[in-house]
Amino acid sequence: MNQQKNNNILFIMMDQLRWDCLSCYGQSVIETPNIDRIASKGVRFTKAYVQGSSCGNSRASYYTGRHVRSHGATWNDWPFHVAEWTLSDYLKPSGAEVVLLGKTHMKPDLDGMSRLDIDINSPVGQHVKNAGFVKGEHDDGLHPEGPLGRYSKVDPEYNKWVKKQGYQGDNAWLQWANAVVDNDGKVRSGFFMQHAHLPARIPHELSETAYMTNRAIETINSLEGKSWCLHLSYIKPHWPFVVSAPYHDRYRGIDLPPAIKSEKERENPHPIYREFMKIGVAKVFSDDAKRNHVMPAYLGLVKQLDDELGRLFKHLEEKGLDQNTSIVITADHGEYLGDHWLGEKDLFHDSAINVPLIIHDPSPAANATRGQVCDELTCAIDLIPTFMELMGQEPLYHRLEGRSLCPILHGGEFEPERDIIVCEDDYGRLPVAKALKRTPYNARMTMAFDGQYKFIHALGFDPILFDVKNDPQEFFDLGRDSGYAHIRYQMQEKLLDWSANLRNRTAVSEEMFQSSVGKSLQQGILPGFWCEESVPPHRKIPTKTGIF
Amino acid sequence: MNQQKNNNILFIMMDQLRWDCLSCYGQSVIETPNIDRIASKGVRFTKAYVQGSSCGNSRASYYTGRHVRSHGATWNDWPFHVAEWTLSDYLKPSGAEVVLLGKTHMKPDLDGMSRLDIDINSPVGQHVKNAGFVKGEHDDGLHPEGPLGRYSKVDPEYNKWVKKQGYQGDNAWLQWANAVVDNDGKVRSGFFMQHAHLPARIPHELSETAYMTNRAIETINSLEGKSWCLHLSYIKPHWPFVVSAPYHDRYRGIDLPPAIKSEKERENPHPIYREFMKIGVAKVFSDDAKRNHVMPAYLGLVKQLDDELGRLFKHLEEKGLDQNTSIVITADHGEYLGDHWLGEKDLFHDSAINVPLIIHDPSPAANATRGQVCDELTCAIDLIPTFMELMGQEPLYHRLEGRSLCPILHGGEFEPERDIIVCEDDYGRLPVAKALKRTPYNARMTMAFDGQYKFIHALGFDPILFDVKNDPQEFFDLGRDSGYAHIRYQMQEKLLDWSANLRNRTAVSEEMFQSSVGKSLQQGILPGFWCEESVPPHRKIPTKTGIF
Repeated sequence: MNQQKNNNILFIMMDQLRWDCLSCYGQSVIETPNIDRIASKGVRFTKAYVQGSSCGNSRASYYTGRHVRSHGATWNDWPFHVAEWTLSDYLKPSGAEVVLLGKTHMKPDLDGMSRLDIDINSPVGQHVKNAGFVKGEHDDGLHPEGPLGRYSKVDPEYNKWVKKQGYQGDNAWLQWANAVVDNDGKVRSGFFMQHAHLPARIPHELSETAYMTNRAIETINSLEGKSWCLHLSYIKPHWPFVVSAPYHDRYRGIDLPPAIKSEKERENPHPIYREFMKIGVAKVFSDDAKRNHVMPAYLGLVKQLDDELGRLFKHLEEKGLDQNTSIVITADHGEYLGDHWLGEKDLFHDSAINVPLIIHDPSPAANATRGQVCDELTCAIDLIPTFMELMGQEPLYHRLEGRSLCPILHGGEFEPERDIIVCEDDYGRLPVAKALKRTPYNARMTMAFDGQYKFIHALGFDPILFDVKNDPQEFFDLGRDSGYAHIRYQMQEKLLDWSANLRNRTAVSEEMFQSSVGKSLQQGILPGFWCEESVPPHRKIPTKTGIF
Repeated sequence: MNQQKNNNILFIMMDQLRWDCLSCYGQSVIETPNIDRIASKGVRFTKAYVQGSSCGNSRASYYTGRHVRSHGATWNDWPFHVAEWTLSDYLKPSGAEVVLLGKTHMKPDLDGMSRLDIDINSPVGQHVKNAGFVKGEHDDGLHPEGPLGRYSKVDPEYNKWVKKQGYQGDNAWLQWANAVVDNDGKVRSGFFMQHAHLPARIPHELSETAYMTNRAIETINSLEGKSWCLHLSYIKPHWPFVVSAPYHDRYRGIDLPPAIKSEKERENPHPIYREFMKIGVAKVFSDDAKRNHVMPAYLGLVKQLDDELGRLFKHLEEKGLDQNTSIVITADHGEYLGDHWLGEKDLFHDSAINVPLIIHDPSPAANATRGQVCDELTCAIDLIPTFMELMGQEPLYHRLEGRSLCPILHGGEFEPERDIIVCEDDYGRLPVAKALKRTPYNARMTMAFDGQYKFIHALGFDPILFDVKNDPQEFFDLGRDSGYAHIRYQMQEKLLDWSANLRNRTAVSEEMFQSSVGKSLQQGILPGFWCEESVPPHRKIPTKTGIF
């Protein structure tokens, strides 16, 4: 065990956060001084990519350290199987408690538990149910209601807490935090983007973001004296796009950057892209007036997060925990916000899958790199190996498909031994799948990016190809351009190599592998020998049985 | 449940059996009338391919119904993880007991069991330990000894049984069944192929093959009145190439077919193929005199199996079980026997991966196809879906990667919806891996066969390509021929499609998938709506909360 290991990791995820909304990334119209301060003390990664392009599959890759192809949780609320390890399994030898506050979008494999006779109330059952986290508080952060009842079966603690503060009703999330009052005095749902200019019905101090920050402070206090890894997973700035005063109009009227889009993109688009451009959220965000009406609320949610993180970081400092706590700041994916005529996420443009990633390691080993910017291609699945090394462990590369970023943090050589980074999507459950006549099994896309070319294998369709070096805005799809056949061939090869190199042999540790090499010959397995004389002396059988 | 289901399945596997040693396949120099009779009552498949090119990975695909890429048991004795379903999980709803007699080469995922707190002695623990089989008798069939002790940690029941018959010694397998006496009266190991012309030290009635047939008869009797699936898994004709009299010299002196090989193959061979040609067993079998010395023993072992199967089939008839028992005869892979300058298996020539497959369904539904020959490309992983249909179940295609062959057995349309069949190998534990400077993770080969082209993706090397239609003997590797670049491109595409279409989403049943489509909108998730008016009436929230 490394003597200089850190005691704690604060693993902060914000949902649907674009990197270019953080001022440390240099292109933001808003200031995020608290996050920036962590960047100035750590390393800021400019080419960090998620492995899944929606919430569930991306998070499953963060929590398992493996590609979507390997863990199989291809969409929101679809579990990986019960034998899949998660963050806490990997960190177990460190002794750190791996605590959750907020969103995971993980559901347990109930059939798998039942097959193995695992009682959900047993310690192992709870481990599987909570994706390995010690459950500080699991809240996937969406609690609306519809004809079929509530979306989330779990009533969040947040609702009870708000009620206790005097806000009446059974569902504060729906009735107060994500609702507004319109000019006619009528209460309106925050889902409807026309209301994005109105403040939430609740003061900032009672917002979901403030609540979860309070919980983080309490939780950190309660863990005093222990080693911990706290996954603080905010639901914001994910929709509904509604935020408390004063954030709701702080950025209203400012100059907003225009959406990254071109009329060229709408000329003969790839069939999948064409369908995604047709859905409701894409239409709203493609209308510049509507987009510019909504975007200030999104930026307000980001600013609210930065302010709350400032409060949390101050608490760490007051407790002296900034000295032994690594801080990681990232997102599960981006948000199109009108880029490429799209809203939300799901496809593979940088607006959706290139995420912020900032890592601050307080140990002296990282002194040389403080404030550095790293332009290497990095992955969400690099985090678990990084966390293991930060905790003084060897990463388990017979399972883990990413690479530790510690060499970057500590000024060493980073040799991830990969030609490409990969991001996947399964759009089978979306209405676009029906329009494209997909089965439940073949609505799959796999993106390979080598730093210049972004190649998207789309089962049943032509591929999509962008030359990001020469077309950084990703306007020109070269997937059907005959001049790029050789590039497509090369990217196919890289993708084939990647898929053959996945860590599917999970039940065989490095030690099991190495100890098995050459062993059978020493146990009398002698295939291919013509006669006794050809067996090397050290492999000969002792004469106990008299037979050779 | 289908009323006309069969009650029983007899699933017979022979280890390392070439299809062309069975006379029903039309090219054999020996007669196998008992197996032929099953073929005459069923369907004989000429293009049945295994999914792994060695014992362990091939069997894991048979027992899980999934490709090696999916189950991850890439080599002998390397387990798949504890959440992987096996044959008995799939057949559970049928109520059939799934019993094992003989070899599986499966080892349990002990780490996975430990992580989930599964006691190996509990019912679930035993289920996992035995790859789901009710353990009639597990015997992987190799019990030699060496400087590191015995290869198999389990002393087989066979040894005790032979000892009881008066053959002294602790390891009858080594001392009697797989040993010979040479001209000097000295006892010699059957491993050494120079002794292949000598009879085993044990009479046929005490051979492993006869023993396991006895066990099958006893087991079937003990299951009277129950529905069952018996996996009768003979270790033979796998090496050691030694067989009891009179089989040992029954085929000595007959005209043997020449090995399928060409000097062209040794000119500038693919690096991996070159290394495999260098190993001991390849050198022995490349020497025609030595090959022709050993092959009669191999054929004797096959004949012995056919005779013993005749005894078993007669027993089924006497008990009337032939009327409600489907019989499946196949192998885990072939045996080069000198073809392509190779011995054993591991690569992807037809001698090694095209296996015999005969299925006899006694139900009236199969009357129209009795004695038919099927030239469709079929797979080892097609068996579990076939078994499920034979037992009146719907195959679980959210996990299973093959296709039921029942449409073929019942004279219907077979539409497997696949462009290629795939076979994989992980040669990382073999000495060739060291020679080729492979890591534990990148010694992977993946073969795609579309009926004409056999394309082998070899991580880190050029691909291998055969045009089997125009080069049925597979002598000319077109993997580096510039004239075939377009074919390689097409085969790459097919392999990429295959890999994207694997059933990785195992924890999501078809029902879970279908019931989730469109549900969230009915639970109040309304992303992408600008205003209330744009929500369709049937998706509007009831006014309980008053908020919309």
